[in-house]
Amino acid sequence: MANIKDIAKMAGVSVTTVSRVLNNHPYVSEEKRKAVKHAMEACNYQPNLNAVHLSKGETFLIGVVIPFTNHPYFGLLVEGIANEAVKNNYKLILFQTNYEEEREIEALKMLQYKQIDALIICSRKCTWNTIEEYAAYGPIVLCEDSRGKNVSSIYIDHYQTFSKALAYLHNKGHQKIGYCVGRRSGANSKLRGKAYKDFLRERKEPFNHEYVFYDCLKFEDGVQVVQELMKMSSPPTALLVTSDMVAAGMITYCKEIGVKVPEELAIMGFDNQPIAKIMHITTMELPLVEMGRKLFLQAIDNKESSHEEIKVKLIERKTV
Amino acid sequence: MANIKDIAKMAGVSVTTVSRVLNNHPYVSEEKRKAVKHAMEACNYQPNLNAVHLSKGETFLIGVVIPFTNHPYFGLLVEGIANEAVKNNYKLILFQTNYEEEREIEALKMLQYKQIDALIICSRKCTWNTIEEYAAYGPIVLCEDSRGKNVSSIYIDHYQTFSKALAYLHNKGHQKIGYCVGRRSGANSKLRGKAYKDFLRERKEPFNHEYVFYDCLKFEDGVQVVQELMKMSSPPTALLVTSDMVAAGMITYCKEIGVKVPEELAIMGFDNQPIAKIMHITTMELPLVEMGRKLFLQAIDNKESSHEEIKVKLIERKTV
Repeated sequence: MANIKDIAKMAGVSVTTVSRVLNNHPYVSEEKRKAVKHAMEACNYQPNLNAVHLSKGETFLIGVVIPFTNHPYFGLLVEGIANEAVKNNYKLILFQTNYEEEREIEALKMLQYKQIDALIICSRKCTWNTIEEYAAYGPIVLCEDSRGKNVSSIYIDHYQTFSKALAYLHNKGHQKIGYCVGRRSGANSKLRGKAYKDFLRERKEPFNHEYVFYDCLKFEDGVQVVQELMKMSSPPTALLVTSDMVAAGMITYCKEIGVKVPEELAIMGFDNQPIAKIMHITTMELPLVEMGRKLFLQAIDNKESSHEEIKVKLIERKTV
Repeated sequence: MANIKDIAKMAGVSVTTVSRVLNNHPYVSEEKRKAVKHAMEACNYQPNLNAVHLSKGETFLIGVVIPFTNHPYFGLLVEGIANEAVKNNYKLILFQTNYEEEREIEALKMLQYKQIDALIICSRKCTWNTIEEYAAYGPIVLCEDSRGKNVSSIYIDHYQTFSKALAYLHNKGHQKIGYCVGRRSGANSKLRGKAYKDFLRERKEPFNHEYVFYDCLKFEDGVQVVQELMKMSSPPTALLVTSDMVAAGMITYCKEIGVKVPEELAIMGFDNQPIAKIMHITTMELPLVEMGRKLFLQAIDNKESSHEEIKVKLIERKTV
């Protein structure tokens, strides 16, 4: 049976070119593509692409680590990554980790074992040590500030963004400000927590742990936060909510129980998801699709590790 | 350098067992796993898993074809697929097709070239002929009725479901009923269109093309449908909306412009997404996570093609 080397020889091209034709890679001349297809037909060649990848070390697969597939924040990131992958003829291997470290390590091992060309980590549980252990095996790109580390990053300065949002609420006259985040211990959540504590310290205001809400990921989580606020003797008058979808849940429930937004509760979202525009949610715009696009391009760029900060924009609407 | 056969020999196990250990597959005894790990360490073996897959023909990768990554319907399906994949130590290759046939064929080719063990097609553009051409290369599972074809399916009877929903609206007194779907020409959309026309024919009512809305996928699309209704001299009094997210957009916008739901416009959603519960949307419950789970299990099941219908439940709330 003919193998990829035979095909290359017959077509008068390199093995790399055959591999690219098999992978529908764009950078092959029409002439060479025809020669390869012709040789394949002549031999009735049915490639096992694992063999092709073995000979070339390229898989045209990029791994993407996300905690949840069904979440609007990661949805938009993956949309950006996937759009750019399609354009460049790469496919994505999706690792839904549920924030289990073991799953993240499986993804890192696929990089080590050359089953993927690069790995994009949208959010992680594992430590820096773990990531740096695998960085030698191939490009790793993170969606958080990783300057000074041996990996690339496309990131938002969450400390500064949170500080800016807090200052905005304060300037609007709010003294009792709380916030909602997705995780207690994530890298981004820690930076936000630090910004919040520094903000209080500057104003010599006490930290009230009741004003901080964790595990806020979905529309329905917003409902629950408002239900908790209703039980407090001195609830916050404004909330920073790091997901528009959670903010939308809050606003919907506030309307239902007759709590006026923003008069009784000011709500500031994050992301600028489509729902934020329609529900007139004041929000911090994170260009997630664009970030996804850049994450992908960084992953297939073979240059040294690089870092790019993405700027966040305040969008004033009607909920603050 | 040691290869996988050497490791198998040293450890006194089969090549299959080594492959399973490398892939963290569950069905390996602790004893054999230790022997393999020991042999690997002794040789300082760094496997290229493409070689492993080449020798075994198993990749522990399942392809998933979806038109969009960032959509709540596909989000829930992929969540179900991904949850079950994690449990069974498989990874997913995601094909975001944007309904381009070429992308679907790329996925089918990966099955042909043994780069994936099976392919799940959540929604498709290509014809049956194309799919059947590739069915010989490995298991293909579809999310639509494919009885009589050489592939497996986990499906909903969309004709019957739509007929049931139309009858429900009619029994509530509605004469002018319209509907919104995602695509004009999808397999499911065609069945729904047929159910709609048959419903009208039985009642000797005329077909009004103004009452049918296509390309309704997102929250913001619901807003646009209501804006179009406002321009009509004789708008429908009830709408079947094949996505709760679109229905939520409609309800939010109706509130904003003072259109009473259900008095002036009855809205029936589909899916029973979390947002449907919170916004009290009457809806047809599609158990999407469970369907995703079954799609995955069918994909790794090596038995002959099989077909399972998933039942849909009407959930009565406050929008009809």
